[in-house]
Amino acid sequence: MPEGYTDLGFAKVDTDRRRRCGFPEVIFGMGKTAEQIVAIARVILEKESVVLVSRATSDHWRAMAAEFPEARWHEVARCVTVERVTLPKLRGTIAVVCAGTSDIPVAEEAAVTLEVFGNTVERIADVGVAGLHRLLAVRERLEAANVVIVVAGMEGALPSAVAGLVSKPVIAVPTSIGYGANFGGIAALLGMLTSCGSGVTVVNIDNGFGAAFAAAQINRLANA
Amino acid sequence: MPEGYTDLGFAKVDTDRRRRCGFPEVIFGMGKTAEQIVAIARVILEKESVVLVSRATSDHWRAMAAEFPEARWHEVARCVTVERVTLPKLRGTIAVVCAGTSDIPVAEEAAVTLEVFGNTVERIADVGVAGLHRLLAVRERLEAANVVIVVAGMEGALPSAVAGLVSKPVIAVPTSIGYGANFGGIAALLGMLTSCGSGVTVVNIDNGFGAAFAAAQINRLANA
Amino acid sequence: MPEGYTDLGFAKVDTDRRRRCGFPEVIFGMGKTAEQIVAIARVILEKESVVLVSRATSDHWRAMAAEFPEARWHEVARCVTVERVTLPKLRGTIAVVCAGTSDIPVAEEAAVTLEVFGNTVERIADVGVAGLHRLLAVRERLEAANVVIVVAGMEGALPSAVAGLVSKPVIAVPTSIGYGANFGGIAALLGMLTSCGSGVTVVNIDNGFGAAFAAAQINRLANA
Amino acid sequence: MPEGYTDLGFAKVDTDRRRRCGFPEVIFGMGKTAEQIVAIARVILEKESVVLVSRATSDHWRAMAAEFPEARWHEVARCVTVERVTLPKLRGTIAVVCAGTSDIPVAEEAAVTLEVFGNTVERIADVGVAGLHRLLAVRERLEAANVVIVVAGMEGALPSAVAGLVSKPVIAVPTSIGYGANFGGIAALLGMLTSCGSGVTVVNIDNGFGAAFAAAQINRLANA
Amino acid sequence: MPEGYTDLGFAKVDTDRRRRCGFPEVIFGMGKTAEQIVAIARVILEKESVVLVSRATSDHWRAMAAEFPEARWHEVARCVTVERVTLPKLRGTIAVVCAGTSDIPVAEEAAVTLEVFGNTVERIADVGVAGLHRLLAVRERLEAANVVIVVAGMEGALPSAVAGLVSKPVIAVPTSIGYGANFGGIAALLGMLTSCGSGVTVVNIDNGFGAAFAAAQINRLANA
Amino acid sequence: MPEGYTDLGFAKVDTDRRRRCGFPEVIFGMGKTAEQIVAIARVILEKESVVLVSRATSDHWRAMAAEFPEARWHEVARCVTVERVTLPKLRGTIAVVCAGTSDIPVAEEAAVTLEVFGNTVERIADVGVAGLHRLLAVRERLEAANVVIVVAGMEGALPSAVAGLVSKPVIAVPTSIGYGANFGGIAALLGMLTSCGSGVTVVNIDNGFGAAFAAAQINRLANA
Amino acid sequence: MPEGYTDLGFAKVDTDRRRRCGFPEVIFGMGKTAEQIVAIARVILEKESVVLVSRATSDHWRAMAAEFPEARWHEVARCVTVERVTLPKLRGTIAVVCAGTSDIPVAEEAAVTLEVFGNTVERIADVGVAGLHRLLAVRERLEAANVVIVVAGMEGALPSAVAGLVSKPVIAVPTSIGYGANFGGIAALLGMLTSCGSGVTVVNIDNGFGAAFAAAQINRLANA
Amino acid sequence: MPEGYTDLGFAKVDTDRRRRCGFPEVIFGMGKTAEQIVAIARVILEKESVVLVSRATSDHWRAMAAEFPEARWHEVARCVTVERVTLPKLRGTIAVVCAGTSDIPVAEEAAVTLEVFGNTVERIADVGVAGLHRLLAVRERLEAANVVIVVAGMEGALPSAVAGLVSKPVIAVPTSIGYGANFGGIAALLGMLTSCGSGVTVVNIDNGFGAAFAAAQINRLANA
Repeated sequence: MPEGYTDLGFAKVDTDRRRRCGFPEVIFGMGKTAEQIVAIARVILEKESVVLVSRATSDHWRAMAAEFPEARWHEVARCVTVERVTLPKLRGTIAVVCAGTSDIPVAEEAAVTLEVFGNTVERIADVGVAGLHRLLAVRERLEAANVVIVVAGMEGALPSAVAGLVSKPVIAVPTSIGYGANFGGIAALLGMLTSCGSGVTVVNIDNGFGAAFAAAQINRLANA
Repeated sequence: MPEGYTDLGFAKVDTDRRRRCGFPEVIFGMGKTAEQIVAIARVILEKESVVLVSRATSDHWRAMAAEFPEARWHEVARCVTVERVTLPKLRGTIAVVCAGTSDIPVAEEAAVTLEVFGNTVERIADVGVAGLHRLLAVRERLEAANVVIVVAGMEGALPSAVAGLVSKPVIAVPTSIGYGANFGGIAALLGMLTSCGSGVTVVNIDNGFGAAFAAAQINRLANA
Repeated sequence: MPEGYTDLGFAKVDTDRRRRCGFPEVIFGMGKTAEQIVAIARVILEKESVVLVSRATSDHWRAMAAEFPEARWHEVARCVTVERVTLPKLRGTIAVVCAGTSDIPVAEEAAVTLEVFGNTVERIADVGVAGLHRLLAVRERLEAANVVIVVAGMEGALPSAVAGLVSKPVIAVPTSIGYGANFGGIAALLGMLTSCGSGVTVVNIDNGFGAAFAAAQINRLANA
Repeated sequence: MPEGYTDLGFAKVDTDRRRRCGFPEVIFGMGKTAEQIVAIARVILEKESVVLVSRATSDHWRAMAAEFPEARWHEVARCVTVERVTLPKLRGTIAVVCAGTSDIPVAEEAAVTLEVFGNTVERIADVGVAGLHRLLAVRERLEAANVVIVVAGMEGALPSAVAGLVSKPVIAVPTSIGYGANFGGIAALLGMLTSCGSGVTVVNIDNGFGAAFAAAQINRLANA
Repeated sequence: MPEGYTDLGFAKVDTDRRRRCGFPEVIFGMGKTAEQIVAIARVILEKESVVLVSRATSDHWRAMAAEFPEARWHEVARCVTVERVTLPKLRGTIAVVCAGTSDIPVAEEAAVTLEVFGNTVERIADVGVAGLHRLLAVRERLEAANVVIVVAGMEGALPSAVAGLVSKPVIAVPTSIGYGANFGGIAALLGMLTSCGSGVTVVNIDNGFGAAFAAAQINRLANA
Repeated sequence: MPEGYTDLGFAKVDTDRRRRCGFPEVIFGMGKTAEQIVAIARVILEKESVVLVSRATSDHWRAMAAEFPEARWHEVARCVTVERVTLPKLRGTIAVVCAGTSDIPVAEEAAVTLEVFGNTVERIADVGVAGLHRLLAVRERLEAANVVIVVAGMEGALPSAVAGLVSKPVIAVPTSIGYGANFGGIAALLGMLTSCGSGVTVVNIDNGFGAAFAAAQINRLANA
Repeated sequence: MPEGYTDLGFAKVDTDRRRRCGFPEVIFGMGKTAEQIVAIARVILEKESVVLVSRATSDHWRAMAAEFPEARWHEVARCVTVERVTLPKLRGTIAVVCAGTSDIPVAEEAAVTLEVFGNTVERIADVGVAGLHRLLAVRERLEAANVVIVVAGMEGALPSAVAGLVSKPVIAVPTSIGYGANFGGIAALLGMLTSCGSGVTVVNIDNGFGAAFAAAQINRLANA
Repeated sequence: MPEGYTDLGFAKVDTDRRRRCGFPEVIFGMGKTAEQIVAIARVILEKESVVLVSRATSDHWRAMAAEFPEARWHEVARCVTVERVTLPKLRGTIAVVCAGTSDIPVAEEAAVTLEVFGNTVERIADVGVAGLHRLLAVRERLEAANVVIVVAGMEGALPSAVAGLVSKPVIAVPTSIGYGANFGGIAALLGMLTSCGSGVTVVNIDNGFGAAFAAAQINRLANA
């Protein structure tokens, strides 16, 4: 019998993930049927007290709600969570900052992920570089955090400016917000990768979850 | 006989350009032989008192110097100028701002072009967004100009920040400075095209001349 | 309390924009809900007499009309405007030229933006370079303007031809009109960036608003 | 024994080409050694009275000159020709037009190819769209040709304008002349493919030979 | 009053096109309203006996049918034609060849365009290079034509093979048929541009009309 | 009369395919009407005992079912098969492995194709490299196969790891599963093409059929 | 002590490769110093009787020759081989076919790799699709092989044609030969990936080694 | 007088960086002259005890050595360091892992940066996924680190595998090592951005410095 995973045929659920990687497996909803998601969630919840479905559709949500009464729907973030036990809160905060109003769904995916993993989130919206006074006004809240996640579309300039203001790790999330030469987030992605701000690291376009996972790993290290 | 140009076989020199477009023809040096450049310059100087060769090589410079004693070599800007008469200075300044030290050659191409066309240039170097205090310190000099040319490589974020600080037209010049995901200036170009700063217009990568030409047209309008 | 903006949670409305940048903040409709747009408009109209919503949907329009009786719907331009006071008209005109009939919506976005900011617009449609006699016939109307905005899809050749005919700043707007190797406006964008016409500056694909904003800044300078 | 070609091991020389395609095989020099080129030329000249080596280096030229006393070096066009008999001239001309001085090498590759295949060439240089009076001045010479080859770099706008002026087939050759967003000829290539001028057909970047070959086929048809 | 066109405000109909370019103006339907198309058609039919609307929708067709009883709907080709007089047929045929069944709509756009301009079309479908015996079987029909239009998606290899079999001009039309690394026709487009077959010229992806227009110009030359 | 194919006008069915290439022609459903597919299937079944329609829609399925009672619908694989005789099974297995649950449709297209051509398939799902213990657990099943088809989206890393574990040919199929910088399968495609695992060969994005066809050819060779 | 590899600090030589993957480790020369290559070769030759260095420079060759007297330099293929024992020859041949003379270096890398692994190679050069009679003349030699490696630059059409002629696995190698829209091999790569020929699998641009490795695995299977 | 920086004309040295961002300014050598670098280093060393020049040339090194006797040259890493005082070592290690021998220069840039900022580095080379036993053998050394930097070219698969083995933050550095479809590091970059391993963050191609800076920030947090 194979060890460390449960084989459902269409999926091999990694039940050993928390031991190896520090957090239980998360279900990436895109391209899965509602039945598959519920079945995977059931396996995870045999060993874990929380489960997160990212990129969930309303179909996914309805199926999860029917199966797990504790399930919650985070509509803006497109996430379903089941928290049978609330994990103990880590010390310190993680700032989730976004450049414009349209970037909020990606920022919320990050925030929901962080919270389900026991982190305290400081949400700051609409501080893009075209109005620097708005950014400078929140400077202390940024520096107070252990990690800063910066979510931005269009030219993706915000992480460079933030990295020059704080001494904490900055994780940049490009979003697909924009049109024309934005090319579905490429402009923001390239801008963040070539940032003149030292120490900016980058995740995939619209990948709020990935940024949150990395930030949670860092915050756990800061709490060790 | 054709009117409005002189036919040299390999080139039809546009001797009517100043009447139509406000400035005499400029010689784009790239891909031309030194002999061709000198021949074109001779035709232009029959009607005009100044000539500019952009993207000039040191070969071009030597040939121009041998033919025109007044010729000057702007090495950093890679330009040769011949000014038989100094054009009267227009009122007001044009700021040429660059994000990093490596962007200076492109900024100098813009500055030399502006000066040969009768503009006063305010040069400001190394005010990239990773150290916002350097940018904020020059804020008044920027607002005092009639036009602001912003030259930046890497993620090209500076025009967005400048556009949010001043009420004057901002012309952005992406440079090919950088490596990796910069892709020879594409990151900066896309960043400037998708800028969240209203009213930023953009020219080709490394095109200091083009930005200067547009700024000179605007400054002439402001002097009308 | 932060200064220079009003914090709505999902947006920090930049109430200081006109002082810094010369024009009040404009609402970019894409990716915002109707409720968010109305709330932002309400904040802007506390200090300003006009507001512009660009990239508006008919949902946005209905919500704005319900809240602001003076609201107007510019359907072709996809804009909503509220003008409580008509701003005084600046001297001079701005020409908005387009290459083909299909480029008209982008040209209208520019024209509506210019008018709300107090400019007089000269509209000229369908003068693409495949029928040069049509372009040559409007030559004087172009030269009479203070700024020329040129809107073109497909190969985006029109700005090069216009720049060779006039002495005024030319702002080029590539459109996504076309198919195949047009690649959603890339062909026109690259054509405009590499224009052989001196002094052409470029904005993002389909960005009529951005071209108009820059033209309005230039026209104000010409009126100073 | 295989028919219709001679096998040299490293090459199978297509000795049947003229019967099938109307013109003898041409030697594409790029990536071949001087020895290979001479060997292939020897096979072709057993059956044909002319041979053309395109994209030749000066090494290729020296080896060809040593073997074939009649060989000629067209330096600007980077071609070697051997004409043991001059082919009879076809009626009518083919115009080879280029937008700028830097496009001349590609135009010459076309012109040399056309001449070796018995066509009369009308060369017209430097009529780019930024000075339309230069183009309009040669309008009759263009219409007088049977085919018009238009060579242009940068934004590649010239074929659109030419196609709107003449009733003859227009073959467009994008060149790699330019920098930045030209991307080695992509801007010109896309501009020509999306041309608003009806009936423009396009060949590869810098492919003067290909345009000439197609034009020669058309001219032969016009002479039939 | 301007000469050579009729100004409808949203369009300047080029009534001088046939004199300059040999064929009357054609209406490109994409992005135009049904009302605009009918209005333009009315202007063209004042001077011409035929009109062609390409890239027409069924809405366009219904509006044209209501206005012009002679209108015909070519559904596969997505074209509407009005022929008040049948133009005299030119001598010779034009072959329209396609690689696969899915390429037929683009081939039909070419065929309908050719027929409305007085050419006789030889249609040949499904002779892709993966079954060379099918191509070799039609070899004589190809050589018998004055021009060969080759329509192909996927890797776009067919024009290379055809060009090696015939002595007539080959015009290649890449189609967007395929998936994955086809990238909406880019694979076929690049394949055709880099064809090892001499004299292949290329038009835009899916541009059956453009290929037909060029072929009609060539055929008229052959009939001169 | 042409030999080796049946001409239906819209298609030339290659009835000689099995003799030349070892397997009968397969019908690629994309872009064909249901009527065309049924007509082609009828021609193939005159000579062959099985037919496969790939990329079939439910419309295609209904039309095939109405005509051929033996037709079967493989919904996940989007294939229709008609097997009038079951082909004899070849010795040995072919492993079809996929990295994630979302890659299963492409894997099923490969599996159904393999089975209709007489191969025994070993299906293994969800063994992506982020949980190497799952991959190592199936190592012997992989090595036991004659060929391994590896289907993966996102970064496409699985074929590299598999190639380092087995001595059998590995055929990699990138899928379009993913988002953002996946660019519709480009990330996986490039990853597989640049694999550090020796001997990995690659097919088009989502091309389960192509991988299966190549694997079937190899397996037949192993059975010879 | 770690098992299955020898740790040289800068490299962990995989001494277990032949047991797992069927062939000993091969040294990829690009980016390695001559000293590193010799050191790795020494470790491999402790257990194996042959070693292959691909992408070798003449520096690499000199260092290898100084250390291993049996070393041979395959200049066209840019490979160094050391064969202390000649491996027994497998039954059957592998055809290595190339489209043009310039593709020979890549084809030779494949041929040298195949020979060092005990395969018999059938070399066929210059059978591109623009002269189909040359390809048809070698048809039987192709079908006689167990595997066909097809090497082609430019549009990469040859694998499609070959796949339609033979029943054996076809492995396609795109080369970077060409210019302009070839984009360093992208045109050929995309053409091969989207081939209409069933069962074509593809390796990286210029990757003769990779194709040979896969072919050797298949041939071993055919010999099992 | 401006505060927080020293203005050298060509550069505004950010003397306030350590207070804001935790580490003193680092000199990016690319595109700067040796004189500029020495001048900037002099300013930094007035306030700081260490300085790092990245992307240094041997010219830069000679100029630095002439000015600062303590300067050291890290040739493989292309870095110059001056350490007047050795900074106190932080607790814990940072693992710098690379996939292949050719990736070592980028890994060394990271290692040198980390060491100058007071971190202890664990170097692990050549553990690419094509030989998983090499990676599994170092598993404990990876988990023992506070942060893991993974450097890989080609398909960039290593970070995904590492992220599945450890619970610490993984920072991925794509390198430009490879050829063909690697496209100068794009394949590795896209592979890392779309990694199936949770929590992988990415920096620019070849940006060893950036990864080290982020890792140093995280390690300082872990030491707080």
